[in-house]
Amino acid sequence: MTRTIKLKNTPRIVNTASVTGKKESDGKLGEYFDSVVSEERFGTDTWEKAESEMQKQAVAMVLDKCNLKSEDINLIYGGDLLNQCIGTSYGLSKYEIPFFGLYGACSTFCEGLCLASMAVDGGYAKNVIAVTSSHFCSSERQFRFPLEYGGQRTPTSQWTVTASGAALLSDSGSPFAITYITPGKIADLGIKDMNNMGAAMAPAAIDTISAHFKDRKIEADYYDLVATGDLGKLGHEIAKEQLEKSGLDFKGRYIDCGMEIYDIEKQDVHCGGSGCGCCASVFSGYIFKKLLKGELNKVLLVATGALMSPTSSYQGESIPGIAHGVAIERID
Amino acid sequence: MTRTIKLKNTPRIVNTASVTGKKESDGKLGEYFDSVVSEERFGTDTWEKAESEMQKQAVAMVLDKCNLKSEDINLIYGGDLLNQCIGTSYGLSKYEIPFFGLYGACSTFCEGLCLASMAVDGGYAKNVIAVTSSHFCSSERQFRFPLEYGGQRTPTSQWTVTASGAALLSDSGSPFAITYITPGKIADLGIKDMNNMGAAMAPAAIDTISAHFKDRKIEADYYDLVATGDLGKLGHEIAKEQLEKSGLDFKGRYIDCGMEIYDIEKQDVHCGGSGCGCCASVFSGYIFKKLLKGELNKVLLVATGALMSPTSSYQGESIPGIAHGVAIERID
Repeated sequence: MTRTIKLKNTPRIVNTASVTGKKESDGKLGEYFDSVVSEERFGTDTWEKAESEMQKQAVAMVLDKCNLKSEDINLIYGGDLLNQCIGTSYGLSKYEIPFFGLYGACSTFCEGLCLASMAVDGGYAKNVIAVTSSHFCSSERQFRFPLEYGGQRTPTSQWTVTASGAALLSDSGSPFAITYITPGKIADLGIKDMNNMGAAMAPAAIDTISAHFKDRKIEADYYDLVATGDLGKLGHEIAKEQLEKSGLDFKGRYIDCGMEIYDIEKQDVHCGGSGCGCCASVFSGYIFKKLLKGELNKVLLVATGALMSPTSSYQGESIPGIAHGVAIERID
Repeated sequence: MTRTIKLKNTPRIVNTASVTGKKESDGKLGEYFDSVVSEERFGTDTWEKAESEMQKQAVAMVLDKCNLKSEDINLIYGGDLLNQCIGTSYGLSKYEIPFFGLYGACSTFCEGLCLASMAVDGGYAKNVIAVTSSHFCSSERQFRFPLEYGGQRTPTSQWTVTASGAALLSDSGSPFAITYITPGKIADLGIKDMNNMGAAMAPAAIDTISAHFKDRKIEADYYDLVATGDLGKLGHEIAKEQLEKSGLDFKGRYIDCGMEIYDIEKQDVHCGGSGCGCCASVFSGYIFKKLLKGELNKVLLVATGALMSPTSSYQGESIPGIAHGVAIERID
């Protein structure tokens, strides 16, 4: 039994939905997102409630696109970065869908896709949603400083994406199948700098991608696109270099969601985007639309997460990383 | 398709392990726990690291009992109550087992059993572990007050259990099968008192238990034991009364893990125990040993979780509850 799991019944991603904030809509992928809310509180009175509202809207939209109602959904897998994952529990409570809460930091979207695809593939559920979110303001004050403080950012820091992405999986209904998943292992090479999460997460991404290609016995040219979650510019560089050294040269077909979502230079986001909503919105908004248009047919999506907390960092611990891989392939 | 999922290949719980603190070993179930560490830092220098150490020990112990090594385990599902679930990620990192992080508050142990049982049942994994933990000291300072403050506790408050429990599932190896799971829906009836989590979680427990009996078309006398996670004394009373009104009278066969673990009066724990480690250790330590001895043959375990955070409570939100149900039955 390899670490990479084959989904023999090829569960399908029927459709996706993405909701973002204004900064994200001003980025390189702005035209791809389904909905942009320029007011950062999303009509609520706190940033945390705004994050819940984004998830609620993303789920409503993907249900609408699939012509389904919440009672048609057997299971929903969701998570976010907030303490006790309140973005998700308050966002999803009104739907009354059987719910599994996840915490995988920024890897959570692919964790959700892994678990959702097994649930559909095994016949335990017909329709399943995976959803995640993050919000710059709720994250910044929880993980770093009060926003009013206006703290300086280090060159290796990343900007938490304000976005939510949702994917609806079913046993049929589209040609876009999840064919294989590679669950992540925790990798910790001793990085302790909370402002350099790219370097902390890169080893996990390298490990998962290497295992995936080895387990499937495929070559580097197999996928049209390999996308890591949000390693950002530095983490992407590290991962790219190490993967090439080990024989996996993707020749320009390897991107990182954290680098794609913003115009890094113009938008002053240092190493790029991060957060549970980054990979979720880039996949749901951009990559899935490229699949729909036929511009991509085989994609490996590898969301990466940094599993520290402010408390563990204050206590001098290093940052464990994780990366979950999901292969999405067009099957006609 | 009903909400309750039948596991047609009846994945087995091969064995379990439990590690607790001193207060838990002084409680009603002390003799059942595998390992008791009387020093609350478990040989580490912080309570958070102590919690990780408990999880590490619980996993080591269940591997040992099953004569397996970490490389024999295909997946591990784990979680805890700490912000960003650091109890789990630091506790499990050395094992290098593919890892799915969960957050379901005190319901996490049953959430893990639900997901682990589907992974084994569907043939996606051979050996899987579900593990959770909680620690009184790390929880108290995160959710309530600094311990040094010595805050007064309200009559409806519960005491976070210092414990970890782990269960190892496989496709064979014991007669104790997970036969059905009932994933929880978020239920929120408007309780806002963070010190009355029993009342906040009871509606979710009632909902899950009712759905389970209805979906399986079984009567109240089917199980030898129905155990909720940690509703505590008040929540148990509410759930018992409401379930009886709806026709589910378990006639003394309904217990709550939070009430069982301590001697509520003598140990001054108000409504009883709570925390991800409560249901995990009571199941792994007590209930599973009763199954092993043949004193129980059919058990419905329903761990309950309160999905708020201090932030959501400060913002005036009510407390959403969830409860995941797992049926464990002896199949010879």
